[in-house]
Amino acid sequence: MNIVEFVKLSFGQWRSQRSAHHLAFRHFEEVTSTIDIEQLALDDERVIQLCKAHNIDPQIANSPFKMSWSGESDWDEDETLEGSTILVPIPDPENLTKGRLLREQGYAETIPSIGEYSIGEDGTFLLKTKYDRATAEEKIWFATDNLRFRVSLIKTSDGKGVTTASFSSEIRSLK
Amino acid sequence: MNIVEFVKLSFGQWRSQRSAHHLAFRHFEEVTSTIDIEQLALDDERVIQLCKAHNIDPQIANSPFKMSWSGESDWDEDETLEGSTILVPIPDPENLTKGRLLREQGYAETIPSIGEYSIGEDGTFLLKTKYDRATAEEKIWFATDNLRFRVSLIKTSDGKGVTTASFSSEIRSLK
Repeated sequence: MNIVEFVKLSFGQWRSQRSAHHLAFRHFEEVTSTIDIEQLALDDERVIQLCKAHNIDPQIANSPFKMSWSGESDWDEDETLEGSTILVPIPDPENLTKGRLLREQGYAETIPSIGEYSIGEDGTFLLKTKYDRATAEEKIWFATDNLRFRVSLIKTSDGKGVTTASFSSEIRSLK
Repeated sequence: MNIVEFVKLSFGQWRSQRSAHHLAFRHFEEVTSTIDIEQLALDDERVIQLCKAHNIDPQIANSPFKMSWSGESDWDEDETLEGSTILVPIPDPENLTKGRLLREQGYAETIPSIGEYSIGEDGTFLLKTKYDRATAEEKIWFATDNLRFRVSLIKTSDGKGVTTASFSSEIRSLK
């Protein structure tokens, strides 16, 4: 599986169940949400701007997409969690299974991020992103074309301790 | 990583947070438990009996262990979930990274089970077990020596549909 195939499999609308484990406090958090993943054109102005912000030639970008979510957490049922972000893969030359991933806005911080991705032989997509005060590690894999799982770890900035581990089950609701 | 190293890393007491996603109903279940994993001798009578029950020569067993758990689910806070089981790896000859795993009593059924395990290049332990009316797939990997994660899927017997996906964070509390 390469990044083009992985992104293509991801297009559509997904119903997500996410459980977060806040390890130090042994707390659970439950989030249900709807996630939309849609293709963007390579010449989309938002894609070009994100590349330029990282001094990257937009010509080497591949399979850019937009991800939007809308959900509810059991920690605050009155508030709707909503947001969207632009993601732009920059594959290594001649190897689409690894490279960089530009993200307009990260999960752990509200600033743009740049992560390193790789796709393993078993099709698992692995993304590592360093932020100022934390590192994030995300694994995503497909059980079937219509069901995927995601494990996200938030680590201390030295990458040794894990503060939060979360698990999402994502079921396709629309192609 | 081979099965001997993997089992050795697992010995001790673990505090577990588990979230189960019941996919069809979009339900969450939260379980907190204490898990004890202890070494057994190769000549332990329980190990020999389990091998014999499967017509396997106890001489080819390796690194048998006992797993016990005691926990609470948010579905029934009055009831304590308790149990224990004996597990006996039967590695393939000359390849300790894959083989069979005998289990005195499974998760999904209360009958003895025999699963197929393999350990990937990234150290992830993968176990597939077929039961009468379901198949179970379990992935376990270490983030550090004292923190491990487990993703368990219960699938329909044809292996295509996933009915329950669960995620555990396990933190070592005792060596």
